[in-house]
Amino acid sequence: MREHVEVSRPTPHVHVDREVLERNIDAMQQAASAVGLALRPHAKTHKSLEVARLQLAAGAVGLTVATVAEAEVFAGACEDLFVAYPLWVDDERATRLRRVLSRASVVVGVDSVESVRQLAPLASSGLRVRVEVDSGHHRSGVPASDAATVATAAAESGLAVDGVFTFPGHAYSPDGRAAAAVDEQRELAVARDALVGVGVACPVLSGGSTPSVEFSRGEVLTEVRPGVYVFGDAQQWELGVATPEQVALTVVATVVGRYPDRVVLDAGSKVLGADRASYATGHGRLLDHPDARITALSEHHATVTGFDAPRGTRVRVVPNHVCTTANLADAYVVGDATWRVDARGANT
Amino acid sequence: MREHVEVSRPTPHVHVDREVLERNIDAMQQAASAVGLALRPHAKTHKSLEVARLQLAAGAVGLTVATVAEAEVFAGACEDLFVAYPLWVDDERATRLRRVLSRASVVVGVDSVESVRQLAPLASSGLRVRVEVDSGHHRSGVPASDAATVATAAAESGLAVDGVFTFPGHAYSPDGRAAAAVDEQRELAVARDALVGVGVACPVLSGGSTPSVEFSRGEVLTEVRPGVYVFGDAQQWELGVATPEQVALTVVATVVGRYPDRVVLDAGSKVLGADRASYATGHGRLLDHPDARITALSEHHATVTGFDAPRGTRVRVVPNHVCTTANLADAYVVGDATWRVDARGANT
Repeated sequence: MREHVEVSRPTPHVHVDREVLERNIDAMQQAASAVGLALRPHAKTHKSLEVARLQLAAGAVGLTVATVAEAEVFAGACEDLFVAYPLWVDDERATRLRRVLSRASVVVGVDSVESVRQLAPLASSGLRVRVEVDSGHHRSGVPASDAATVATAAAESGLAVDGVFTFPGHAYSPDGRAAAAVDEQRELAVARDALVGVGVACPVLSGGSTPSVEFSRGEVLTEVRPGVYVFGDAQQWELGVATPEQVALTVVATVVGRYPDRVVLDAGSKVLGADRASYATGHGRLLDHPDARITALSEHHATVTGFDAPRGTRVRVVPNHVCTTANLADAYVVGDATWRVDARGANT
Repeated sequence: MREHVEVSRPTPHVHVDREVLERNIDAMQQAASAVGLALRPHAKTHKSLEVARLQLAAGAVGLTVATVAEAEVFAGACEDLFVAYPLWVDDERATRLRRVLSRASVVVGVDSVESVRQLAPLASSGLRVRVEVDSGHHRSGVPASDAATVATAAAESGLAVDGVFTFPGHAYSPDGRAAAAVDEQRELAVARDALVGVGVACPVLSGGSTPSVEFSRGEVLTEVRPGVYVFGDAQQWELGVATPEQVALTVVATVVGRYPDRVVLDAGSKVLGADRASYATGHGRLLDHPDARITALSEHHATVTGFDAPRGTRVRVVPNHVCTTANLADAYVVGDATWRVDARGANT
């Protein structure tokens, strides 16, 4: 049974349905375990210690984070952190990383000899690295054939290499999910063989994202790092990855305008975020009104068609991309409780 | 002379060039005064008491805000506030509005008889209303011909009406700025005549937005409410409204990835915001490299083409839409000082 829309809090506010959240966490853990994969969820999606603790209790081996600031926060819940990002570690960040290393095991992403050199002084504090491979998303990462060069430089400078990783971001496509998972596993296998060929052990092959993870298998990968699955969002709904029943996070909004062809809600881009993928049918969806579409979004207005209701009506909006919604929130309303977004603003 | 890029703060961080900021504030004030218009800047752009005080010191008659929460914050700097939004005022918001009314004069937007009825109990606390007119943006607001119906309902329920307003949002178009300003002034004049026709005085005709304001004149309008002009952004740059020299706010970012065809910066959508208008040439610009384009943006990565630099290089990124960037910031770095974003999260 779905919870009712909370009426005692001012709108817009971010609501999390705990029952759906826990179901999502358990389902992903079971799916990963069933195919022999370790699950290291990306905490950037929720930025919440409470959610992280639920993921770890369900069986996650550790957490993925995007920034040193997130590592600082999540070291409070987890002693096994992977910063899946090609960090450029200046003096300030090195000092902060050393402090995190005194509290937790930390592996960071690396995709160049330059950053290996820069990270080398942190080897004595226990920092380890994982080589990022570009498996087709063409954002960061080296081609798989160059992974050995980076790994060799790391090993020579005293940095322990724990493996290779990739983000198959091209899986964010209605028709490309399975193919991106194939790319991911093929390129990581090439990179692993290259490392082993130059005498660098490669125990970890880490991939995965919410849209590709159902195609990931333990024959190649050892770990997956989905993030969005905890909450779901309109992107996953429209990609066919999540059903509306699997959406745990919504923004509760009020109808503030009603006109012959549209209504206007008080949840705009300052609360929902403004991501809109090319395949998206609008700027978000209404959980309880699947035919409705948000056809325009400004800072404090969502213009909705295909739905009509009197001013004052409350609705649950499913944001397009939930990571950016969580990034805008101070807290989640969870039944009668409020959970802090502990890593709010932790983006440096 | 432009300031140098701040090197002692971790990236990404939000930098404000005070000299450019003050020049923008003075220029807009002079332009408005020269054509007989009162300037009531929209504080949602900066959410900063410090910036608001500079605007008021330069001659602004008051401030525009978008939410009750922003009114609560800006009552600390200003006793004359206009909430340019069709508020739906439930009990919680009514209590908060009453508290603001004890500190400042408050006018709120209204575009329906239903909301007039709901606001009526606040008349005794001094709340006044201004009727919102749809001048072509088709978001909120009534057609000009219906403004009298709303105004009459307000007057009959004891709410003082101080005039009419519109947001000509269709001015956000490279070729449509002047035409939107024509629409704005024509429709507000129709609405004013309608109010006067039913015996409701209409002293205020309020319009304006940064891209349309240069076409606004005091023959029809009495006040304008631009917001973005204080900081500038890539939208205004690409609309031809601001030059790069007029951009006061940038996000300082570091090159974290360098590949044959692109570099990657550590400023993503969680710091810049993700707005991208149809006319935008990318997801933001680099202030000092006008040929560069941000061709892809994810949460912590900006992929840049047309620019090359070694890892570790710092650059100044001009966000597409600065209101959403400010909404993501805790503070602005202003030379050696830090200014709080006082209304951070004040979106309810």
